[in-house]
Amino acid sequence: MSHHDRPTPEFAAAVPQPDGTPERLRRQIEFVVEVDQLKNVLRQSPLLAADRRENDAEHSWHLALMVLVLAEYADEPVDVVRVLAMVVLHDLVEIYAGDTPLYDSAAGADQEERERLAADRLFAILPDDQRDRFRALWDEFEERTSAEARFAKAMDRLQPLLLNYGNRGGTWRTPGVTEAEVLARKSVIGDASAELWDYARTLIRTGADRGWVPRADPGA
Amino acid sequence: MSHHDRPTPEFAAAVPQPDGTPERLRRQIEFVVEVDQLKNVLRQSPLLAADRRENDAEHSWHLALMVLVLAEYADEPVDVVRVLAMVVLHDLVEIYAGDTPLYDSAAGADQEERERLAADRLFAILPDDQRDRFRALWDEFEERTSAEARFAKAMDRLQPLLLNYGNRGGTWRTPGVTEAEVLARKSVIGDASAELWDYARTLIRTGADRGWVPRADPGA
Repeated sequence: MSHHDRPTPEFAAAVPQPDGTPERLRRQIEFVVEVDQLKNVLRQSPLLAADRRENDAEHSWHLALMVLVLAEYADEPVDVVRVLAMVVLHDLVEIYAGDTPLYDSAAGADQEERERLAADRLFAILPDDQRDRFRALWDEFEERTSAEARFAKAMDRLQPLLLNYGNRGGTWRTPGVTEAEVLARKSVIGDASAELWDYARTLIRTGADRGWVPRADPGA
Repeated sequence: MSHHDRPTPEFAAAVPQPDGTPERLRRQIEFVVEVDQLKNVLRQSPLLAADRRENDAEHSWHLALMVLVLAEYADEPVDVVRVLAMVVLHDLVEIYAGDTPLYDSAAGADQEERERLAADRLFAILPDDQRDRFRALWDEFEERTSAEARFAKAMDRLQPLLLNYGNRGGTWRTPGVTEAEVLARKSVIGDASAELWDYARTLIRTGADRGWVPRADPGA
């Protein structure tokens, strides 16, 4: 058995690495194994291409693809590699903290604390320098303190909008959700790109015109 | 109805974009919608975290994550944003051409031609400049003509190795597959990173020691 500074995380421990694996590489591979669990974190959004809900790994890949296609719409210059890193990493905390639906205010109340603790635990699997670098990227994304973070967050808001529009409703049909609520939740898109925010508002207005999202809460 | 140069692809056509969407953006969004189908292309490899097969979108996300963690092992300097772009795009052709299992020689025979035709069709959804840029990245990846392409391909070979090792066999148990065959199929890892190829060989040898992949074909 090899000696090391920190315990292997529970999930990755089920796949002990071969003896003799260098310590730094062993921790990196354990992280790669641990995050396989992202493929099991289900989101609310239904896929366009299948009758099932999307998982976080698929969602994160879709955001990376969107960054490659849509980066030209960023109003401020962005370093694409940093945007890509943010979207690839942004949902990892949900492996431990779970998915918090955008339109679920109750779950949203302690979301920040739960995700912060999850980030502490998850990124600690990595060597210290990578732990710090990945954590800084995730903090930056969450706090939207840079052009890259704002654009990454815009992709994170636009992608489920495309799924909802394509599904003629999707999570827009969550009880209590209205056009005004959707517009409010999606307005961060406008902090990254005026043109994509124009497009997003057109999708939402068209959805409301067609009855896929109510103009006002019928229960209010 | 808007006028445009090329027909909307069949799948994306089921989600007509709102009137007035600018032509360039409309084509980009249609591409983003069309590729949702990658989430439906199943690979042979079983996940570590669930009892089901992995799909191409999950696999592509996992490669992007691995690039962020493991890029330091590249023997030649790599431009990480180009490696990330390649792994995000590398399997898109399988939306039309299907997945070709690594250990299926019969399906491998016309794989190149099928995937080339799929690339022609898929990337043509995009505006011409992006069509050309994405196609060039995919060609570069397939032909391994750069340090970035070799490292991206190494990730594509290492990731299922981790799944097979973690699953105590996985697709190593495909009839006819032997340790020598696995080593031959994985040797491209060594073209990108001596250290990761050392590690990969250790995984394969350990797998053979434990009986997860046969030393020789018992039917031969």
